[in-house]
Amino acid sequence: MNGLNLLFYPRSVAVIGASEDVRKPGYMFVRSMLDLKFKGEIYPVNPKASEILGLKCYPNVSSIPGEVDLAILLIPVGKVLDVLVDCGRAGVKYVIVLTAGFSETGTKEGVERERKIVEVARRYGMRIVGPNCMGIYCPSSGISLFAGLSNKPGDVAFISQSGSLAAIFSLYLEMGYNVHMSKVVSIGNECDVNSVELLEYFGEDEETRIIGAYIEGVKDGRRFMEAARKVTARKPVVVWKAGRTGEGARAAASHTGSIAGSDAIWNAVFKQTGVVRALNFEELVDYVVTLRSLEELCGGRVAIVSSPGGLAVAATDACVEAGLEIAELKSETKEKIKKIIPEYGTSVRNPVDLGFGAVIPEIPVEVLRVLSDDPGVDVILYVGGAPTADVIRVTEMTAKMIVESGICSKKPLVATMPLGLLPAHLQRRFIEAGIPVYTSPERAARALAKAIKYHEYRRSQK
Amino acid sequence: MNGLNLLFYPRSVAVIGASEDVRKPGYMFVRSMLDLKFKGEIYPVNPKASEILGLKCYPNVSSIPGEVDLAILLIPVGKVLDVLVDCGRAGVKYVIVLTAGFSETGTKEGVERERKIVEVARRYGMRIVGPNCMGIYCPSSGISLFAGLSNKPGDVAFISQSGSLAAIFSLYLEMGYNVHMSKVVSIGNECDVNSVELLEYFGEDEETRIIGAYIEGVKDGRRFMEAARKVTARKPVVVWKAGRTGEGARAAASHTGSIAGSDAIWNAVFKQTGVVRALNFEELVDYVVTLRSLEELCGGRVAIVSSPGGLAVAATDACVEAGLEIAELKSETKEKIKKIIPEYGTSVRNPVDLGFGAVIPEIPVEVLRVLSDDPGVDVILYVGGAPTADVIRVTEMTAKMIVESGICSKKPLVATMPLGLLPAHLQRRFIEAGIPVYTSPERAARALAKAIKYHEYRRSQK
Repeated sequence: MNGLNLLFYPRSVAVIGASEDVRKPGYMFVRSMLDLKFKGEIYPVNPKASEILGLKCYPNVSSIPGEVDLAILLIPVGKVLDVLVDCGRAGVKYVIVLTAGFSETGTKEGVERERKIVEVARRYGMRIVGPNCMGIYCPSSGISLFAGLSNKPGDVAFISQSGSLAAIFSLYLEMGYNVHMSKVVSIGNECDVNSVELLEYFGEDEETRIIGAYIEGVKDGRRFMEAARKVTARKPVVVWKAGRTGEGARAAASHTGSIAGSDAIWNAVFKQTGVVRALNFEELVDYVVTLRSLEELCGGRVAIVSSPGGLAVAATDACVEAGLEIAELKSETKEKIKKIIPEYGTSVRNPVDLGFGAVIPEIPVEVLRVLSDDPGVDVILYVGGAPTADVIRVTEMTAKMIVESGICSKKPLVATMPLGLLPAHLQRRFIEAGIPVYTSPERAARALAKAIKYHEYRRSQK
Repeated sequence: MNGLNLLFYPRSVAVIGASEDVRKPGYMFVRSMLDLKFKGEIYPVNPKASEILGLKCYPNVSSIPGEVDLAILLIPVGKVLDVLVDCGRAGVKYVIVLTAGFSETGTKEGVERERKIVEVARRYGMRIVGPNCMGIYCPSSGISLFAGLSNKPGDVAFISQSGSLAAIFSLYLEMGYNVHMSKVVSIGNECDVNSVELLEYFGEDEETRIIGAYIEGVKDGRRFMEAARKVTARKPVVVWKAGRTGEGARAAASHTGSIAGSDAIWNAVFKQTGVVRALNFEELVDYVVTLRSLEELCGGRVAIVSSPGGLAVAATDACVEAGLEIAELKSETKEKIKKIIPEYGTSVRNPVDLGFGAVIPEIPVEVLRVLSDDPGVDVILYVGGAPTADVIRVTEMTAKMIVESGICSKKPLVATMPLGLLPAHLQRRFIEAGIPVYTSPERAARALAKAIKYHEYRRSQK
């Protein structure tokens, strides 16, 4: 393990620009570390206060009695350089610079300012995260610069060139799926600690089983490729690369000073390195959730079971368009299904249309069980949500029975439930049972296809 | 107005195959009509019961004392023909045949069975909806064959070849958006009343302002085109056409016996007739919600305002890819924005990146107001959701202030809020204020582009 350990597990943190004003980040950052029960020392720094949130406040870093592993800078851009020098003299190891106004402005002054802070950091052997970032989240050490997140350690690491997106992503996985994060870093302009170094670190990190990233560009493409290839052979890496269009790239440049690069080149890079590419936030979430649950996927022959007949058609379209294969069911399988589902409104071919049979939750569950025994089926897509008139109640009952059936331990199983029909707690139970759940067959099919491709890639690397 | 009025506003309904068993459709259909306070007479028919849900039950249609405008058939396929003859003799006007086992089976017997019921209907001057369908929903008359829906009349009509999808769609709009339906029909195999006739009817229906449809195929392409062209000149028509792939088309054939037809031909048909094409459930919902709120859209120059910088980049990509134009802001506009947003972490060009400024809800609202005054901006896309650390609270406060600001009455405004960050009641308030809301910039951009195209088409027809 490399030196980044102290960034995620500092023994002490100085919050420079801490504040008692509840609307200011300087308040929220101290608050969230207290909420997450950060185990080390917290030193608020603000010359105008003597105490913040019950903690003694210091006028500057040099007046802090103990050692400071990590300093968080929340101060106007004009003061950053002087404070960095103070930090260096005080022996600070890591500095997170949240302040913006550096290379991302595209101005000479901004670029020069960034060059100078790197120079100071090098002089004192300090490492910098940022500038123009939102910091880090590490529930296992109790450090968080994002409000609202729990201190439950998870297995998903996230690297983000957008701080807010890092916060949304983490909140979204936690609230919607009960999936928790191992470590999250908002990297900002990456003047020092960068996405490649973090990718390598998370590749080795035992807590992390899967890595997600939002990036607008990388500075050293070759090193990124080397790192990605090494990591994807062991754990999935899902990257949402933004700035695909000319205008998007221009926006990226003024956001974090990134050079977005040609989209075609990025596609080639992802393909060669086994990185799973997401094109938007939903794909990012879906691919991470899917690859986290489905650890082994061999082959893309899908069996579709649908309560709403219309969605059976839509799911078939979606699977075919995503490059999956509609599995040919064995005749025994079809015979067995015929016995389970009632005579009318149904199809026993693939897609299996349950018709009115779906009113009785036992029926879809039995059909899923029969399909899980068919060796010609690699994965099952269950399209739930509207078996008949009493949609919501039946959907919930069926979902519960599928989770309890244990079918997914015999064969990979994914489910779609139209939004609003599956309460959040049931969605979370699906995920806990190892069944990725989506709001539409299109999302499910895309995610399955990506997961299958990743596993193919990984097997080819062995 | 044509004769379909009596289908939606029957004075009396016979439910043939009514049941006291709460798990059976024959129970639920009576139950939901009672729940919706259907104004006419309800006659349950079942030879084995004397009373169902407190209503007197009849052994057959001929024993019902009064006139029956509408009969709903929930009986085994072998009995349908005889009961239809009974209905004909008793002077029933409309019959909804929910029973399956007709042409959709692809068997000779099934096709023959369907031919015969049409023959009987013609003989007695009855009209048939179905077979193999789930019936209708019309809150203004209090008739519903879908459970869980309210009796609030709305302005969206829906025609669906999948009954469950009709139910999901209606529930989804009601629960998620507080948007209500005028009339919904699950058309099944369309042996008599078909999508084209309904399209024409809804085109004239004063209650209906926008029409959605899920179709797998139509029987008379020419008449569909004529009807569509006529209706789209007055109200938007959004169609999700499934069965796009070969396998999907095969599934459609066994679902409702539809011939899906070539996808390229469908694209041409939609283009020529001004029908807005949706490729999946989410697009169907988004396009209906958007076209319902934005009644006049002239031009596609978008101004993007984003709290999360990363999503500003993503939104820019999404708009460009959807064919929209990133508006060039006037220098006065930029000057004004510069004064509103704080010095760091921001961009005053389009996309406007609010940076930490978004922590204070007044700031995004003021920026939106300034943009609404810029004549070079046709529409504003507000990307909310994660201004900074305290994401959820700030998102809610900002959303409330945007709704109350009234900016959307000056310029079309749409908003995106990552799922789970905007409680359902706030999402509904956005919609009520005339601001379509989406879960991602990609969905917003796609919907905006479609709405703009539709309005262009409609203007070209005048």
